[in-house]
Amino acid sequence: MGYTVAIVGATGAVGTQMIRQLEQSNLPIEQVKLLSSSRSAGKILHFKDEAIRVEETTKESFYDVDIALFSAGGSISAKFAPYAVKSGAVVVDNTSYFRQNPDVPLVVPEVNAHAMIGHNGIIACPNCSTIQMMIALEPIRQKWGIERVIVSTYQAVSGSGARAVEETKEQLRQVLNDNLSPDQLIATVLPCSSDQKHYPIAFNALPQIDIFTDNDYTYEEMKMTLETKKIMEDATIKVSATCVRIPVLSGHSESIYIETKELASISEIKKAIANFPGAVLQDLPSQQIYPQAINAVGHRETFVGRIRKDLDQENGVHMWVVSDNLLKGAAWNSVQIAETLHKNGLVKPAKELKFELI
Amino acid sequence: MGYTVAIVGATGAVGTQMIRQLEQSNLPIEQVKLLSSSRSAGKILHFKDEAIRVEETTKESFYDVDIALFSAGGSISAKFAPYAVKSGAVVVDNTSYFRQNPDVPLVVPEVNAHAMIGHNGIIACPNCSTIQMMIALEPIRQKWGIERVIVSTYQAVSGSGARAVEETKEQLRQVLNDNLSPDQLIATVLPCSSDQKHYPIAFNALPQIDIFTDNDYTYEEMKMTLETKKIMEDATIKVSATCVRIPVLSGHSESIYIETKELASISEIKKAIANFPGAVLQDLPSQQIYPQAINAVGHRETFVGRIRKDLDQENGVHMWVVSDNLLKGAAWNSVQIAETLHKNGLVKPAKELKFELI
Repeated sequence: MGYTVAIVGATGAVGTQMIRQLEQSNLPIEQVKLLSSSRSAGKILHFKDEAIRVEETTKESFYDVDIALFSAGGSISAKFAPYAVKSGAVVVDNTSYFRQNPDVPLVVPEVNAHAMIGHNGIIACPNCSTIQMMIALEPIRQKWGIERVIVSTYQAVSGSGARAVEETKEQLRQVLNDNLSPDQLIATVLPCSSDQKHYPIAFNALPQIDIFTDNDYTYEEMKMTLETKKIMEDATIKVSATCVRIPVLSGHSESIYIETKELASISEIKKAIANFPGAVLQDLPSQQIYPQAINAVGHRETFVGRIRKDLDQENGVHMWVVSDNLLKGAAWNSVQIAETLHKNGLVKPAKELKFELI
Repeated sequence: MGYTVAIVGATGAVGTQMIRQLEQSNLPIEQVKLLSSSRSAGKILHFKDEAIRVEETTKESFYDVDIALFSAGGSISAKFAPYAVKSGAVVVDNTSYFRQNPDVPLVVPEVNAHAMIGHNGIIACPNCSTIQMMIALEPIRQKWGIERVIVSTYQAVSGSGARAVEETKEQLRQVLNDNLSPDQLIATVLPCSSDQKHYPIAFNALPQIDIFTDNDYTYEEMKMTLETKKIMEDATIKVSATCVRIPVLSGHSESIYIETKELASISEIKKAIANFPGAVLQDLPSQQIYPQAINAVGHRETFVGRIRKDLDQENGVHMWVVSDNLLKGAAWNSVQIAETLHKNGLVKPAKELKFELI
């Protein structure tokens, strides 16, 4: 006996990786159900050796589903996740829609798996840029506490979906093969498909991910601030972010500055990170060893290096943190949440429906 | 009557731009002398419509030179700049060799042109990543003072020379046209041609520029710290940097966090930056207006945007600063120093030779 696992958004950049992560998972899986918009329905995808026809997502799609992984955009989660819960499924939602809902745990399993106990049927997976930062920060928070964080990100285009990846490649080809100047390129997806203006990413760095909020930070930046507070269950942790898209296909990098509450030595911090599940220490400047996006791709871990004291602030520490944004940043963290639910006997129907049916 | 101006390193990425900047300069130029290593000597380059044969640099190259612009690496400046001074020329050195020498002013003309009064024959041009930061910081320092700076850079490969640009393009072609995986690419130049290991830059972000120092910061990072203190004539300004190379050909971007000594409003800061020579304010989030590397290329200005308060720190301000690393970051700042020397009657032989002849 095993679970029926549904993937909503199965044909997307993250959905495709969710299938791969489920194939390698130790979850007992009886059946995999691949769901999408009507546009992609009918496509044939493979789970292990089995060909599976992608079906259109409807309110009735979940009657036989135990675990539903959602990664098809916030509006799809808003519309269908409550029906999945009503049908008795547990939802792992990779969109931002439910993340700040007080009835929904926001989970990085290595950090706050306990938050899923007594869940209401929906578990939210944090934003990609937040997840890898949590893996680097949590071992420090546990031992010395964290006062504040300043982070600048170097984010890959796959975080914006398959169309952004294609746009990036096409723009690079136009510059390299057709001699176009980068400022002449035509963009239709990045920095944010739902925003008004689009800018080239080839040979560029775009300091906008998601749309702007009223305080002149972007939603992506505010996600890093608000999600950190929720995951670490500490509203007093100060986080300010600058989120930037760069011409990398996969693998997010982050330059993180931390002030700890209690003084910690760099060697103690390195040891704490090396011992933390999901974290890999890559830090040997004399050998030019430090995390790199191209080496992180395809791996589930978060890689941490360039750990060093601030030159002036006694409790200040700088580090460089890299992870595969499609894996730990999305697909693997979602599947890992499902595995953790299973291991703790938490794959069961919610007692009451706390979410609005629309 | 006009000056004889020599360019040492005339065939390099910066040297080529120095020729272009001199062509547009208001310096009275009688003659341009192009110097290089023996390897590049004999090449023909153009200054305006004039074809000029590149000559090998020797200790005797400078006997008729008034202004010598050096950009051929620290060892070349160490060897030949003192002979240029001995010959009666004023040297504008774009390498790091003399930057921390107390007998040598380190100059961003908009910030500390006064430091050149009574010079000893050599003026140093700061590091590219420092210069653009100075343009953004100085208007703030003048009005409110600066307590500390945390900066993460997004630096273009042209800062590492013409070979790094070619390597980047070739690696990108291998991925896009030949389907190589980025981690299979072979690198021979970046992150630092003089270091032991080389890593691909295509679809990557490399947290190493220049070699590592003993404190686990790189020389590039320490340049930003030490040069800021020297240019701003304030050893107490705290600066910690993380310097990162990204796959951009030209145009450095910087995510800068500042704590001011006195409280400043964002609107006042924007006004101060907009009014500062060499700075251009590009900051209208509601219209998605912010500085971008591809738009800065070819311009002499430094572009500043994404200016906003830290979410928690009352005196904390974040900003995004972009400039053409080959122009304001090197060639234009060097030519601008020469123009400023001329304007102030400072193009004249040093009274005594303060630099070792080797």
